[in-house]
Amino acid sequence: MDGAVTAAGGDFDAWMHDALRDVEQALSRWVPADAPAGLGAAMRYAVLDGGKRLRPLLVLAASEAVGGRPAAALRAAAAVELIHAYSLVHDDMPCMDNDVLRRGKPTVHVQFGQAQAMLAGDAMQALAFEVLTPDDDADLPPVLQARLCGLLARAAGHAGMAGGQAIDLANTGRALDPDALREMHRRKTGALLQGSVLMGAACGTTTPAAWAALADYGAAVGLAFQVVDDILDVTQPSATLGKTAGKDEQAHKPTYVSVLGLDAARAQAAALREQALAALERSGLAAGRLRALAHRVVDRVH
Amino acid sequence: MDGAVTAAGGDFDAWMHDALRDVEQALSRWVPADAPAGLGAAMRYAVLDGGKRLRPLLVLAASEAVGGRPAAALRAAAAVELIHAYSLVHDDMPCMDNDVLRRGKPTVHVQFGQAQAMLAGDAMQALAFEVLTPDDDADLPPVLQARLCGLLARAAGHAGMAGGQAIDLANTGRALDPDALREMHRRKTGALLQGSVLMGAACGTTTPAAWAALADYGAAVGLAFQVVDDILDVTQPSATLGKTAGKDEQAHKPTYVSVLGLDAARAQAAALREQALAALERSGLAAGRLRALAHRVVDRVH
Repeated sequence: MDGAVTAAGGDFDAWMHDALRDVEQALSRWVPADAPAGLGAAMRYAVLDGGKRLRPLLVLAASEAVGGRPAAALRAAAAVELIHAYSLVHDDMPCMDNDVLRRGKPTVHVQFGQAQAMLAGDAMQALAFEVLTPDDDADLPPVLQARLCGLLARAAGHAGMAGGQAIDLANTGRALDPDALREMHRRKTGALLQGSVLMGAACGTTTPAAWAALADYGAAVGLAFQVVDDILDVTQPSATLGKTAGKDEQAHKPTYVSVLGLDAARAQAAALREQALAALERSGLAAGRLRALAHRVVDRVH
Repeated sequence: MDGAVTAAGGDFDAWMHDALRDVEQALSRWVPADAPAGLGAAMRYAVLDGGKRLRPLLVLAASEAVGGRPAAALRAAAAVELIHAYSLVHDDMPCMDNDVLRRGKPTVHVQFGQAQAMLAGDAMQALAFEVLTPDDDADLPPVLQARLCGLLARAAGHAGMAGGQAIDLANTGRALDPDALREMHRRKTGALLQGSVLMGAACGTTTPAAWAALADYGAAVGLAFQVVDDILDVTQPSATLGKTAGKDEQAHKPTYVSVLGLDAARAQAAALREQALAALERSGLAAGRLRALAHRVVDRVH
């Protein structure tokens, strides 16, 4: 992959290996095993030892690109992954997508029951904001805490992820035009992916122009991720995905493949990658990690 | 009521009337009607025009006692009510308490479906943190935003409300000793009520001793609220409560009445009121509103 060895130096795979280890350790430290009555076990099951950790990687890569404080970025990375993981727990429940397999394991409600799954998701959302507001951490001063809480809340809430899920829910079984589909995904998955980039950027210093360029990068990568997700849903078996394949089609959900067709969806993913890379050029930052992540998002097979 | 006319001056009922109006207007302003695909409607249904608003009143009263900024306290009050309201939406769902009546109306999942109810609750939790992190509000500087986010997240999460609900869930149908029951309620309802007092206190200036005394007040009022709730569940009809009466007993949930008996539960409520009032004395603050609220919590009939 061209983007793997970057202008910023260093090997991308080695960086990613270390980043994933740091994120895993941070989550393991901050998601409490001793939360009462099995809640901790359910929370840890939902978030540890699984997942691509794309959002944390975007946070850490963006922070590195703007000279952010690594300890602050690690908290932001863990917080955004907690939001993502809670949304999967709630999404998988019988009243939503009713899925039984996630990251190759039984979903949380299958393993712990629906009530505990709902509570674990709720507690994970709160925990994300706890992780962002340490009482005493010189690397995360209150001004940055407030900024990160604000970005995360807006990415997760009605204008972002939760709003996108409501649109998804309302449109299952209906035809959507490409613009409406794009708007749904801009909120449902795009907002949190873009939010990850911006939270990383908030950990350092940026010009307004660089901030805007990073926002464009995040929007393009966020949409590319969803287009590729829709492609993989019809081209890969469940065992590769670690979740039930063909689910969207069975559920009559509008996807990029169903709306555009497979070839046009692939062309769309490639175009979004170019948009993301062009935005990084505009940012004027040495953003090799973010370049490499844009390639990974589009080239991934699961 | 002795506490109704306070050393701080003014009539409590008039203050409460104005405070409730302000909270209602703030919630109406900040809970978006235009959130997509019916999500806004479900969120507004869940939080507007109903409820005692005890938590917002505690925020505003505590803020007033410490000379806090009213505009900051109003944001804190709305945020804490959003957390409370979301918890009711999720609590009422079939996989939890399966209740159909709340605040005299069909519960959110009855009105909007389970999936929308879960999403509305999720979006309300995020919205609470959005309300606490305005981009540009001179009354709520970032340092205070971070402080309020931290207090709210901890009151709502695994160590507070969500943790208490997990204990509740695990102990339905089981006998609990009074200490275990107290521990459950300290988290389940107490943490957010105490958090309300502390969020109000954070809006102004306190000595460490006054802060500790207000924390004691909040803990006592929080527990008193639950003891009275358990008493009302067996002594009042559904029409007065605005929710299904006798529900705890039917569900074989341990309550103060089932564990201690009705007379001892009443004595407990009275003792907690005295503890709350004594804590206010220790605070050294002119906290007439908080005194009056302690009386209201114990003397209420619904």
